Amino acid sequence: MTDPSDRAAFEARLRRIGAERYHDRHPFHALLHSGGCSIDQVRAWVINRYYYQSRIPMKDAAFMSRVEDPALRRAWRSRIEDHDGTEDQPGGIWRWLRLAEGVGLDPDYVASARGVLPATRFAVDAYVRYVRDQPLLAAVASSLTELFAPAIHEQRIAGLLAHYDFANPQTISYFQHRLTEAPRDVAFGLGWVLDHARTAEQQDMAADALTFKTDVLWAQLDALHSAYVAPGRIPPGGWTPGEGLA
Amino acid sequence: MTDPSDRAAFEARLRRIGAERYHDRHPFHALLHSGGCSIDQVRAWVINRYYYQSRIPMKDAAFMSRVEDPALRRAWRSRIEDHDGTEDQPGGIWRWLRLAEGVGLDPDYVASARGVLPATRFAVDAYVRYVRDQPLLAAVASSLTELFAPAIHEQRIAGLLAHYDFANPQTISYFQHRLTEAPRDVAFGLGWVLDHARTAEQQDMAADALTFKTDVLWAQLDALHSAYVAPGRIPPGGWTPGEGLA
Repeated sequence: MTDPSDRAAFEARLRRIGAERYHDRHPFHALLHSGGCSIDQVRAWVINRYYYQSRIPMKDAAFMSRVEDPALRRAWRSRIEDHDGTEDQPGGIWRWLRLAEGVGLDPDYVASARGVLPATRFAVDAYVRYVRDQPLLAAVASSLTELFAPAIHEQRIAGLLAHYDFANPQTISYFQHRLTEAPRDVAFGLGWVLDHARTAEQQDMAADALTFKTDVLWAQLDALHSAYVAPGRIPPGGWTPGEGLA
Repeated sequence: MTDPSDRAAFEARLRRIGAERYHDRHPFHALLHSGGCSIDQVRAWVINRYYYQSRIPMKDAAFMSRVEDPALRRAWRSRIEDHDGTEDQPGGIWRWLRLAEGVGLDPDYVASARGVLPATRFAVDAYVRYVRDQPLLAAVASSLTELFAPAIHEQRIAGLLAHYDFANPQTISYFQHRLTEAPRDVAFGLGWVLDHARTAEQQDMAADALTFKTDVLWAQLDALHSAYVAPGRIPPGGWTPGEGLA
């Protein structure tokens, strides 16, 4: 199962999952990137997506807590640094809060995670639990949605700059940074999965994990769309336009 | 409960736990530091203590996986860096394997964790699980055995250099590094515990956690002493002198 043609076929299978299920195909993103969102819809997205961002370092720490190999932990640790920052350099979470300010939200409100949709919490918390509980191969494979991220970040940067007054290099620096961080992370993760998914069962497990992760991302946008676009029914506890402004 | 005299009394209570229960009082350490250990007894200690060292970054990642505050995660992350190292700098695990080489062991054998006493695994794994499952306050308080570590490291450095041919600045550099790392970590951890253990119940929880951790350390030395000193009954699966030599 480890010959090069099998490896290439398996990689193609993983990439097909992205082509069919990644959330760049979700109508909310078409709306966002084409300038069709109201400022309140953008704010709702910023508030909810913050919850996802804020849990990523916890997810990565949960992964590292299960890794016995110091070299693998060391390779993974940069993901946490990217999001949490270092003593000298702010990280992705800080940059996301600059976007929050840019769209007129109080960053403390956003960081409090009040107003995050319950469905967002359920999906994101399921992801953190998955990485904590499932086999390491599944945990690494679930990170491979990063394979598809640079394309959506490019579209987003261009779309936001073209269509929204709040968009400028400072407010959207989160996405600019991800353009270099995500490819480095995913090159490592993809190589690791291709090396370790050698049997048909292991390849199925990795494909299932990546599918699961696309579900986690898609469910967040469905919840957002339902609450703030159509039908626009905000569930109890969800952010209401006007709340949390700077 | 937060007045300065209460804070000082609580800190004194924590320090008393160390004075009464820390593993510097264990007879194995007296034997080791006074030059009374055979080289095989030193090797058994190096092999078993490696298992503890190797799980510390996993324990710290388990902690970080539960922390919602980026600043607290950032402050904690240096512990993982200290043990796993960075791209440019080796970490504590690497330095411990230099000690392993210094005492004539094959570092790959030591890193494989074969031959680690089952009782060592049980105690260490219980610590990792504790930090993963218990309230954050208990998790942080369990790290406070570092309060008592510099004194034992000083004794150890002096004792090893005075009594054993294998000891030189290279082979014992692990302990030298801990002299600066541990006080920085514990200053943060102690401040955090003193700030967050404000009720009597919380102070009891923190004291129990520190007591638990002293049990984890003591149990490892009891197992080592039983297997390799007196009565010297190596349990099934435990390292046998002659195995794993370089």
